[in-house]
Amino acid sequence: MSTKATFYHAGCTVCVDAEKQFAESLDRSKYNVEIVHLGETPNRIAEAEKAGVKSVPAFVIGGLPYHINFGANLSDLK
Amino acid sequence: MSTKATFYHAGCTVCVDAEKQFAESLDRSKYNVEIVHLGETPNRIAEAEKAGVKSVPAFVIGGLPYHINFGANLSDLK
Repeated sequence: MSTKATFYHAGCTVCVDAEKQFAESLDRSKYNVEIVHLGETPNRIAEAEKAGVKSVPAFVIGGLPYHINFGANLSDLK
Repeated sequence: MSTKATFYHAGCTVCVDAEKQFAESLDRSKYNVEIVHLGETPNRIAEAEKAGVKSVPAFVIGGLPYHINFGANLSDLK
């Protein structure tokens, strides 16, 4: 069974690069990847924040946040 | 053809978790993943540093560093 992996980003250069290198490159037999653009769907910022996401790009896997490099603070997207 | 992806870590809890979630979960048809424990092979710290790695756990893909969360500074491993 595959685990849900949510990739949160905001369209920034660092985000787009992380999306290519990680979000699009995870083993699909292990992960069910959802890509969420928080600039376009700001109503999902709260769920990211609740999982511990401080900045984008970041993954939430199994309820835990994984920040990859730094693109923008979540607080700057509000 | 697969791209080389080097995962540098130091055996810390954050590292081990990132190894499981990312290093072991990347699509092997896209990436040729090498896992490097810098605590056990300190002679490879210099190559990580040269690629821009500041802390572990981190990947170097296509010569660029991708830091995932924060486990330890590279400077603390020397």
